[in-house]
Amino acid sequence: MTSTGLERVIVIGCGLIGTSIALALTRAGVEVALDDLDPHTLGQARSMGAGTALTEHTPLADLVVIATPPSAVVDTLYEAQARGLGRAYTDVASAKEHIWTEAELRGSDLQGYVPGHPMAGRELSGPAAAQPDLFAGRPWILCPYPGVEKEALAAVDALVSLCGARRTDMAPARHDRAVAALSHLPQLVSSALAAQLTDLDPEVLALAGTGVRDTTRIAGSDRRMWGDILAQNASAVADAVGRLAEELASAAAELRTNGPSGGSALVDALLGRGNLGRSALLDAAPKTPVPTPLTPKSPIPAPLTSLTPKAPVPAPARGPYGTLRLAPGRPTGPLPTFRPFQFQPTAGDPE
Amino acid sequence: MTSTGLERVIVIGCGLIGTSIALALTRAGVEVALDDLDPHTLGQARSMGAGTALTEHTPLADLVVIATPPSAVVDTLYEAQARGLGRAYTDVASAKEHIWTEAELRGSDLQGYVPGHPMAGRELSGPAAAQPDLFAGRPWILCPYPGVEKEALAAVDALVSLCGARRTDMAPARHDRAVAALSHLPQLVSSALAAQLTDLDPEVLALAGTGVRDTTRIAGSDRRMWGDILAQNASAVADAVGRLAEELASAAAELRTNGPSGGSALVDALLGRGNLGRSALLDAAPKTPVPTPLTPKSPIPAPLTSLTPKAPVPAPARGPYGTLRLAPGRPTGPLPTFRPFQFQPTAGDPE
Repeated sequence: MTSTGLERVIVIGCGLIGTSIALALTRAGVEVALDDLDPHTLGQARSMGAGTALTEHTPLADLVVIATPPSAVVDTLYEAQARGLGRAYTDVASAKEHIWTEAELRGSDLQGYVPGHPMAGRELSGPAAAQPDLFAGRPWILCPYPGVEKEALAAVDALVSLCGARRTDMAPARHDRAVAALSHLPQLVSSALAAQLTDLDPEVLALAGTGVRDTTRIAGSDRRMWGDILAQNASAVADAVGRLAEELASAAAELRTNGPSGGSALVDALLGRGNLGRSALLDAAPKTPVPTPLTPKSPIPAPLTSLTPKAPVPAPARGPYGTLRLAPGRPTGPLPTFRPFQFQPTAGDPE
Repeated sequence: MTSTGLERVIVIGCGLIGTSIALALTRAGVEVALDDLDPHTLGQARSMGAGTALTEHTPLADLVVIATPPSAVVDTLYEAQARGLGRAYTDVASAKEHIWTEAELRGSDLQGYVPGHPMAGRELSGPAAAQPDLFAGRPWILCPYPGVEKEALAAVDALVSLCGARRTDMAPARHDRAVAALSHLPQLVSSALAAQLTDLDPEVLALAGTGVRDTTRIAGSDRRMWGDILAQNASAVADAVGRLAEELASAAAELRTNGPSGGSALVDALLGRGNLGRSALLDAAPKTPVPTPLTPKSPIPAPLTSLTPKAPVPAPARGPYGTLRLAPGRPTGPLPTFRPFQFQPTAGDPE
């Protein structure tokens, strides 16, 4: 039991973000149950002490965190609510407007669901790259629907606090334009920059300095995950990337025309605006001290000595979407009523 | 006297690179004389212990390092050779082909001049940002003319060694294409990325993470210096920037067409090539241990306590180019013969 009232959390999707959340929660004394379509990924997360495996005996969670790829969030949310896994739900996808609309169209319970986006990450992916302090001091954006239940919002707020992050509420469209400029555009541009390096031989690449290293660091990020993210925020990203491409094309044309004599006004203006943008970025960095995650109430559990689960893991029932394994009786029509949830503890509850 | 035979060096231009070279040489026991059009800049470099001010009494140098902005190199070289300042000459400009051609057209002594480019830098500029170990382990590219004198090449080789750098010889056209991809393209793209941030309000900018921070770090670089560098390498940079802009425009168009349903093949390919380029960059990094600069033969001189020169600094005779102050009798026509130099020590020689 933590001071925030968050006792039990289910994390669906044990990638970098899901496992980092699970590690932060476990460290804060929360009981975490984990699920992932891939038994190896699940085993890795468990072996790091991120939690236990979700089973049919796992009791009702105070909060279900959907940390799947963005394109799987809507289906996973629907199924998790249909199974009654938790009292409240959130996700961590880095594009919000499409999910916001689709979850409503799909008929999910929006009063118990708070779309979220912890703005933290690494160029590495998977549970092995997870860190319990990944979110410390970072923004965590929430895009609650009008009429969201207080209790659901409080549960997600507690999640943000326990991870040491800073909550910021924002409309989904504003969120998507912000992350297009701050995250999705830099990602695609960094990838495109690094793509140009494939033409160079190793002797030339060995000349590289810190400038090209820094600008291409995030080009090492997971290709499939980013294809998914960029698609989910396609409109805002296309606007931002198209605008940048036009500016670069104009600068290239001017350089070609003027040559070594210089005096390229567009190039000069771009460099000047670059100076301003960089200064603005540094000036806008939060001046307040970085909050630290809450003190753990229980020691971090020792990692399991082996990745092998005690019982054989059944092959996941893999659908077109989603990473939820507990879907033997997947509903085919709209669910009648989601709330209130019926919490029925089973014999295997670890209470 | 150092073990390399380099006793006296003149550094013209006391910016980041010139002052860093001067600091490295001074630390290695070389007598360094400094010159800069701006008395304040010169005073800063002197106060950091980078050397003494160049005067009419400064003896003939074993090597003259021209560390002016790229567009001033050809004129400064011509003047320095006309004044007979040194036995050999080099420069540090980050574009080489245009200078290579222009120095020949101008009628400079090419047997005593070795065009060079130390591939190191910071996003900061000016002498205050200089560091004696800026070049440690970094590549230093030389583009010698056919028929260069052995002694001149040996002097520049000694400079590279004393700075702890790794010498790589390369044809100027190959150099310029390499730095277009590895340095000039990343600079312009980083500036263009940061330029997009000027549209965002501080509340949104405060959400920024390490990705956008890293990709825009070099956007803080000196605007005028970079305008000059990009112009000097205009053709190769225009090719590289134009190609990147086309790829980004295609990706943006595809994202717009496909929307959240995804399946964008061009975007996926760009992300995939980005992964490959990033891996190639990391793989090509030199595996050998970083060479350390030679042990100093004399202690680093204590910095002067004040920036104020002992004698008033005369206002520089500022021409259309160049940062050379010692040009009271600037030659107007072509110089008859440069070599051999007549070294005539004056009464004020500090020998």
